[in-house]
Amino acid sequence: MVAVRLPDDVVIAGGGKIILVVLDGLGGIQDPRFGKTELQVARTPNLDKLASESTCGLLDPIMPGISPGSGPAHMALFGYEPLEHNIGRGVLSALGVDFALTEKDLAARANFATLDPSGNITDRRAGRISSDANRKLCEKLGQAIRLPHSVELFIQTESEHRAVVVFRGEGLSDALSDTDPQKVGVPALDPSPLLPEAELASEVLRSFLSQAADLLKKEHPANAILLRGFAVLRPFRSFGERFKLKAAAVAKYPMYRGLARLIGMEVLPACEDMDSEISLVEKELPNFDFFYLHVKKMDSHGEDGNFEEKVKAIELVDRKIPSLVALSPDVLVVTADHSTPSLMKAHSWHPVPVLLRARTCRVDDVASFDELSCARGGIGRMPTVHLMSLALAHAGRLTKYGA
Amino acid sequence: MVAVRLPDDVVIAGGGKIILVVLDGLGGIQDPRFGKTELQVARTPNLDKLASESTCGLLDPIMPGISPGSGPAHMALFGYEPLEHNIGRGVLSALGVDFALTEKDLAARANFATLDPSGNITDRRAGRISSDANRKLCEKLGQAIRLPHSVELFIQTESEHRAVVVFRGEGLSDALSDTDPQKVGVPALDPSPLLPEAELASEVLRSFLSQAADLLKKEHPANAILLRGFAVLRPFRSFGERFKLKAAAVAKYPMYRGLARLIGMEVLPACEDMDSEISLVEKELPNFDFFYLHVKKMDSHGEDGNFEEKVKAIELVDRKIPSLVALSPDVLVVTADHSTPSLMKAHSWHPVPVLLRARTCRVDDVASFDELSCARGGIGRMPTVHLMSLALAHAGRLTKYGA
Repeated sequence: MVAVRLPDDVVIAGGGKIILVVLDGLGGIQDPRFGKTELQVARTPNLDKLASESTCGLLDPIMPGISPGSGPAHMALFGYEPLEHNIGRGVLSALGVDFALTEKDLAARANFATLDPSGNITDRRAGRISSDANRKLCEKLGQAIRLPHSVELFIQTESEHRAVVVFRGEGLSDALSDTDPQKVGVPALDPSPLLPEAELASEVLRSFLSQAADLLKKEHPANAILLRGFAVLRPFRSFGERFKLKAAAVAKYPMYRGLARLIGMEVLPACEDMDSEISLVEKELPNFDFFYLHVKKMDSHGEDGNFEEKVKAIELVDRKIPSLVALSPDVLVVTADHSTPSLMKAHSWHPVPVLLRARTCRVDDVASFDELSCARGGIGRMPTVHLMSLALAHAGRLTKYGA
Repeated sequence: MVAVRLPDDVVIAGGGKIILVVLDGLGGIQDPRFGKTELQVARTPNLDKLASESTCGLLDPIMPGISPGSGPAHMALFGYEPLEHNIGRGVLSALGVDFALTEKDLAARANFATLDPSGNITDRRAGRISSDANRKLCEKLGQAIRLPHSVELFIQTESEHRAVVVFRGEGLSDALSDTDPQKVGVPALDPSPLLPEAELASEVLRSFLSQAADLLKKEHPANAILLRGFAVLRPFRSFGERFKLKAAAVAKYPMYRGLARLIGMEVLPACEDMDSEISLVEKELPNFDFFYLHVKKMDSHGEDGNFEEKVKAIELVDRKIPSLVALSPDVLVVTADHSTPSLMKAHSWHPVPVLLRARTCRVDDVASFDELSCARGGIGRMPTVHLMSLALAHAGRLTKYGA
């Protein structure tokens, strides 16, 4: 099921307009109370009608059995092989707080934590301190700490105990082990270099951690900081260059905006609701070839284990489908980045349903947009990373391969 | 459809129990007399009920169109990409006679054969001599032959004209051409080195063949020995280490036991029938995380072209299903290594049906366990090598990939 890369020379400039609607965490599994998934329970007359005019199928975000994080799941949707284009947690966290990363930055996800007097971790989340308390600590550390080798420090609150730390300087490798041991009853770990080239970064990290330890030791309960997911920004070949099109992202949450920016999409202003987002796409339709529209709520309710609210969120999206269809894109794709079954309260590995509507599609007989019906659709089951090629083809943006 | 390797860092220690039932050669094609496959004709109420509680699909053992031997088909089931982890015929034959191979061993499959006075092969199977006659010849050769460079010789009867020859010594490469030309009317071939490093092995082989020719020349009809499939044991990363679990094999035939041992499974004592095998699994359930249970009969009857007996063998397995289900494994998988259609009397390339039952599965509407119904199941059609990832995911043994 690996993805072969789309040959560059089949991509042509020009062609139709594509709208990719990503319903985050859409896929589910059956709740024994209903014997149905969220998508099967939801009343979705508009998605069902769209499915009946489309080719449908199931997509594997990464490969069978793998539950993806949002980063790799989106990279696959954008046509980047997710196992080859892994984005480190530090970078994703920085994108998530709208931090403008540069190529000199080494980013890490940070947790404020509690140590006991002997230096062992008693709470990896420092009792989930308030975001306000977090902000004060970030300010204190950011103002006081001075790093060797002229490395600049940025430290930014995410929420509660979560923060992002960015080190900006020359030659900072991310080949470092986490300081967060991911368990309690033990001390924090040393940021060891995993490759010789990470000696410099390791030295900077040790200086940061020793100063932070001094500055935090009188605080309570957040008397320590743990770092994990060290990552530098690796340059990707941009989406627009690969697929010869102008792409815009319509997303509310910083991480999705950041991911889109990372691959060179233009990120449009965030909107309050889906109606405004669709109006924005309508207004910008003449200016772009490709729109990525991200809808978050299904995933949040899935993570909370709230089957009923996830159903409602799906029904809400369904009511917006006619106004999307009214924009008459040449290719309209509705799918998900990954499944988030309410029953599992987490991202899962289950493949996600997809529908693709275009003048050139071979319409199958799927007349209901749900996981089981789509399993019998014309797309069959394929890796998500192939979706972009399919959308481009239906938009008339791919030429023949070979003579 | 190439397989991507499961990333190591998503595999976690701990999780549920998995039982993998391999019905050897299960898949078939329609017999024109019935218009149905063996599995469609067989009355399988228990497998059908299980299918209705499962997610179902079709698996390609290697890739579409490839008829696998038992070795690669099983490697795929065990999660090893079969084209990367090919086990040579010599090694498989040695496993098949329960020979304890070491890493110094060069193994080959041998045929006793008949030569005419001018040295051309007239029968590649020496009239299918009896296993007893075979044993006498093996003894004679084993006792008389002395090899250069202190290489030790082991020669062991398989059955009829078939035997296994093992050369034990330092630096014996398997990059040698077969001496069996696989046709009659021509002489046996020279064991030529295919790489310079195989010069030593080639010299040893020539010495073996010249002494064997002298010792056999008065025998009738087995006056020659042909060798093919030279292979050394290549160390594999063990199953238990890759998937962080304790695995046990329940199989009767030496080759399957040998394959399981080769990848580090613990091979449990062979049982007489499936009832005893299931009791053994029950008894050992607390001691292992994963059980491989091999059932041979479908394949044997398929190879014999005996449609009716294959149907009966399937029905016999079906009656044992409730006692397997009663063990309440977290994940129960029933599938095949490959198809063996009675009509073809051979292993074939046709994909095999699979069902996977687990609390987290997205139950599809397949209610009959057969090749056609499974083609419309939720698993779709995927390479067999992904099955392990899927089973591990449903057993809660994989963590999220990426943030």
